[in-house]
Amino acid sequence: MAVGTELLLGQIADTNSRWLGEHLAAAGVSSYFHQAVGDNRERIVTALRTALARGEAVIMCGGLGPTQDDITREAIAEVMHVPLVRDEAVVRRIEALFASRGRDMPANNARQADVPQGAQTIEQQRGTAPGLICPLGHKVVYAVPGVPHEMEEMFTRAILPDLRRRMAEQGEEAAIVSRVLRTWGTSESALAEVLQGRIDALDEQSPAGTGVTLAFLASGIEGIKVRLTARARSAGEAAALLDAEEREVRAVLASTLGDVVFGLDEVTMEQALAAVLLERGLTLGVAESLTGGLIASRLVAVVGASTWFRGGVVAYDSAVKHAVLGVPEGPVVREEAAVAMAQGARRVLGADVGLGITGVAGPDPQEGVAPGTVYVGLSAPGAGDLSRVLRVPGDRQRIREYSAISALDLLRRTLLRSAEETGAAATG
Amino acid sequence: MAVGTELLLGQIADTNSRWLGEHLAAAGVSSYFHQAVGDNRERIVTALRTALARGEAVIMCGGLGPTQDDITREAIAEVMHVPLVRDEAVVRRIEALFASRGRDMPANNARQADVPQGAQTIEQQRGTAPGLICPLGHKVVYAVPGVPHEMEEMFTRAILPDLRRRMAEQGEEAAIVSRVLRTWGTSESALAEVLQGRIDALDEQSPAGTGVTLAFLASGIEGIKVRLTARARSAGEAAALLDAEEREVRAVLASTLGDVVFGLDEVTMEQALAAVLLERGLTLGVAESLTGGLIASRLVAVVGASTWFRGGVVAYDSAVKHAVLGVPEGPVVREEAAVAMAQGARRVLGADVGLGITGVAGPDPQEGVAPGTVYVGLSAPGAGDLSRVLRVPGDRQRIREYSAISALDLLRRTLLRSAEETGAAATG
Repeated sequence: MAVGTELLLGQIADTNSRWLGEHLAAAGVSSYFHQAVGDNRERIVTALRTALARGEAVIMCGGLGPTQDDITREAIAEVMHVPLVRDEAVVRRIEALFASRGRDMPANNARQADVPQGAQTIEQQRGTAPGLICPLGHKVVYAVPGVPHEMEEMFTRAILPDLRRRMAEQGEEAAIVSRVLRTWGTSESALAEVLQGRIDALDEQSPAGTGVTLAFLASGIEGIKVRLTARARSAGEAAALLDAEEREVRAVLASTLGDVVFGLDEVTMEQALAAVLLERGLTLGVAESLTGGLIASRLVAVVGASTWFRGGVVAYDSAVKHAVLGVPEGPVVREEAAVAMAQGARRVLGADVGLGITGVAGPDPQEGVAPGTVYVGLSAPGAGDLSRVLRVPGDRQRIREYSAISALDLLRRTLLRSAEETGAAATG
Repeated sequence: MAVGTELLLGQIADTNSRWLGEHLAAAGVSSYFHQAVGDNRERIVTALRTALARGEAVIMCGGLGPTQDDITREAIAEVMHVPLVRDEAVVRRIEALFASRGRDMPANNARQADVPQGAQTIEQQRGTAPGLICPLGHKVVYAVPGVPHEMEEMFTRAILPDLRRRMAEQGEEAAIVSRVLRTWGTSESALAEVLQGRIDALDEQSPAGTGVTLAFLASGIEGIKVRLTARARSAGEAAALLDAEEREVRAVLASTLGDVVFGLDEVTMEQALAAVLLERGLTLGVAESLTGGLIASRLVAVVGASTWFRGGVVAYDSAVKHAVLGVPEGPVVREEAAVAMAQGARRVLGADVGLGITGVAGPDPQEGVAPGTVYVGLSAPGAGDLSRVLRVPGDRQRIREYSAISALDLLRRTLLRSAEETGAAATG
């Protein structure tokens, strides 16, 4: 249940319900209804009563802020028929949070420490509002802030474990465990086609609601995910099923689509690349034009990046490409320029490996080159200098993001391949 | 009301509810509740009865396809207590649609011509499924396909006119228009505190459901939004109310919190900064350490950035700060280093204005400086060289993102202020 007039007015999208749906499903919890309601006490109460009548647990997102139109706490207390009680320990945590930013807590924020009598709080770790776990007979209402990163953290840390405990008490727990193979460079339909045989085989093997299922998730731009979900009597049994199926799926993909799996679960492309660089003891420098710092900013998001990432040059203006990176005068939206940028990055930044990227994000063509045309250049010990052309569909932002991941993937695959070849030569 | 198990599983986002909310609000129709439900007849019926009990009109999206799990038609007929009747004229339109693609209509698609007795159809113009207008006493249920462009076309062509007609009959027609003031550098509670007087005044002035309301939206990291919503008899009248209230709110904010409003509606911080740079005819170069390209990548997202953005240096490794940017040897997590980076960016990238940022994203301290400590340096004609220290709470990613926006805002405010001073000096 999402709370906030801005949702009803369409001013923001309700991404929380989608996120919760996905994560509840992965955890084996059936969700039957979503609701959104505005900042109106009577209607929140009505919606909450409806939700409780239709399910055993309700997750409410939003309406826990400090202002007068944040009334989720009041609505829950009304449905529970209990008063709100100010939790002084929570007040002190909020005060400490403000103090750490060198500020006094505004009086309004004390409202965030009001707790329906009989409810537990979920300690706030990212924002000022704590979450709530509110028992109603054998049912339960969870309340979390509407800010996605606060909600997601509380769901994972407190709500999901509480739900699992309740399911176990009711004897509903089967172990449901998921694993996600992250792929890049292929389409959902191509994956579905080559894995249809596995899906059919799994359907035949597991008629009784146990066993493994495969699903595809095209969640945004970060590649297609192949989700393996195992249902068994214990977590160990489920993990063994997943191990076996992961081997099968990897073998099918490697023999048909090549090296499309770059990692598991929450691994990002930059983490996958970082692992390869670390293993080979190489440092990296990047030179970016159309991606404008997107590649560098992804790389520094990896914890420990300072051991292998030297830095980057965002050469948005052509003059910067020539003056700073030493790209020869002439056209700069060319494969040769991408390679020269990679060499320049290697030299200027003192890195072992250089990655260069140039191209046209649009909306207009540049140097006669159409939007969506992107050139990636690499310069690396062992692999030498090479370049690739990408044709990327979509708008300006999509072209930039897709190009950034593609460039990281190209570097990852190239380094892996040159390591294999070096290994083969050394042992051959 | 959105129908489809894929919504509950989080496999697709419910963009229709947001679109409808936005367009209903713009048309002056209050929407009070959103629901999503899976492809389960019993639960669709329950949700539809709930929706009808809570409102006078219900729009259902989805479940009108040709397959056996598309059961919106059946559920509506059950709630209406009427049978489904096949509409032969609709069958012929579906057949003609397939014929125009050189194909025969699959038998399943005839189901899409089933209409609850007493309902009207909305002719399909983009897909195979017609929409439905289903009267239930003085209330009404509209059903449209879940495919966004089919839904949007039917809403505009048939549903909105029908709703307007019903509202006119009940004398309820009004225009609702919103405007959002984007702020940075203050908290939701501080805004609420200084604007409480306006909120109280507005409450007194508009007891009859007309007039202006204020609300605060804390949507993620991009600052707090102050939303002004006006309800009036016409769009022109509503806009005039908004203009007047925007002046009041801006005056209150300027006199209490300073220059916290950076733009309106969908304007981003980088667009606000771009407008200042463009107006003053200045080019910009950036030097980033902990933000690692995040600032540069935000800047190039602005269409037309090539006219004022020269590029950036991501000096993640200290050696790059010294060698490329000319930061003096010694500690690099200092205000002096941030200023030297700004000067270096200006010189190396050939830019009028230089922005430098260094600090500690964590998790560990660096050079004895605690995580969340960030130094921003500026070097600009007119403003000279200056620096600021930020203390940013949160994890690594949040520290980086918050620092990036803060640095952009600092530059924006500094350029605005130096322009004012120059203007004052010139006219003084």
